[in-house]
Amino acid sequence: MQILYMYSRQVIQRSFKMATPIRKSVELFYDVVSPYSWLAFEVMCRYQQKWNIDLKLRPFFLSGIMQGAGFHQPGPSKASYMGKDLKRQTDMYKVPFKMPRNPAEVILIKGSLNAGRFLTAVDMNCDQYLEELTRQLFLRVYYRDEDITEPASLMSAAAKAGIPEDLAKQLLSTIKDQAVKDRLRETTQAALDHGAFGSPTIVAHVDGKPQMFFGSDRMELMAHMLGEKWYGPLPELAKAKM
Amino acid sequence: MQILYMYSRQVIQRSFKMATPIRKSVELFYDVVSPYSWLAFEVMCRYQQKWNIDLKLRPFFLSGIMQGAGFHQPGPSKASYMGKDLKRQTDMYKVPFKMPRNPAEVILIKGSLNAGRFLTAVDMNCDQYLEELTRQLFLRVYYRDEDITEPASLMSAAAKAGIPEDLAKQLLSTIKDQAVKDRLRETTQAALDHGAFGSPTIVAHVDGKPQMFFGSDRMELMAHMLGEKWYGPLPELAKAKM
Repeated sequence: MQILYMYSRQVIQRSFKMATPIRKSVELFYDVVSPYSWLAFEVMCRYQQKWNIDLKLRPFFLSGIMQGAGFHQPGPSKASYMGKDLKRQTDMYKVPFKMPRNPAEVILIKGSLNAGRFLTAVDMNCDQYLEELTRQLFLRVYYRDEDITEPASLMSAAAKAGIPEDLAKQLLSTIKDQAVKDRLRETTQAALDHGAFGSPTIVAHVDGKPQMFFGSDRMELMAHMLGEKWYGPLPELAKAKM
Repeated sequence: MQILYMYSRQVIQRSFKMATPIRKSVELFYDVVSPYSWLAFEVMCRYQQKWNIDLKLRPFFLSGIMQGAGFHQPGPSKASYMGKDLKRQTDMYKVPFKMPRNPAEVILIKGSLNAGRFLTAVDMNCDQYLEELTRQLFLRVYYRDEDITEPASLMSAAAKAGIPEDLAKQLLSTIKDQAVKDRLRETTQAALDHGAFGSPTIVAHVDGKPQMFFGSDRMELMAHMLGEKWYGPLPELAKAKM
């Protein structure tokens, strides 16, 4: 009787294991000044429930990556193509992207250091707000052409992301703390260690091995390697049609 | 009776028109030294029957594009990533790619001028062989690590592409003719005029307007813009599953 009981427990445990395969983890390294990162961010958020993955949002500092990996400004034909490509892709992906009036000022002059530190402070203290704060910062830069460097800008994004005002103020007061600076630096270094040379950098852990993907355009390939299915950039619509 | 006859003829014509929408034309500009061009070439060949398109293969000269558009060697992280990316993608696309032992020699020193001229001569005289000759040249460089600059190499590729020996010899004798050189230059210029900065460059004519796409990774987007469906890189397998 005892043996039978133990046996059936083993069977139950075994079938439980079979029914719930180990979730794979996917790290999305991104900087909110990178428009292709927005595409990857929205797609990964859409798929985090659909695929058997744990999505880990990893805000990093793109300038640190560019310094570490070497960077060339695109020539005029490539720059012009990228503008068109972003418009077409964000249309198809239903991401409300608008190019800011002065992209060079947004990306190269104003940059994203404070935004990256604020995201890092949120990640360290209350990561349940990280996804929505990320989205609100993308919306500021690449939809409404608004600042993301000033404290008031970060507070406004935090409010839209549902972070209580007192908490947001407290988080904002920590963004120049050594712990926050160190954490942003460590995250950036972790991406560089995976071979990053731009944003987004996606690291999927497949069978215990990290697989790095650059850009927003390797989703179908990543799905294939994760053993998951790609339903296009609008998976919920695809489901509705089936 | 006459009126009724005319009317039904109109109806028939109209429904015939509705049943056979105007085919859209898609130009694939490529150079056989570009491995991502091979991916795009195979995918476009797989889709030319499935989609309502006329595929026009347009062999061009990548060095002419690079000179025209400015070119930077990728940094070490990006170069290493591209090697992995090609391996993963060609595996998934079922294209038998192998990186040659010395890619810099293949691409930058030996180059593809003779191969481009031979493809051009075939395109001008007997374009029914163009697809298979293109494939045979890709297989030489990016599968068997063989030369594509010598006359004997081009003759061997031609034989595998089913071009009769006499015809292949005659075509080979024309590759330094002014007409062939001019045609390759014109094709390269046409791509530059569409904003090309690398290979492959794909120009889809949608509602009479040319839409340029760079690379092998905008197929799903191009399908969307053409009003066609993307079934992944192996459309025949996708069909078999449905």
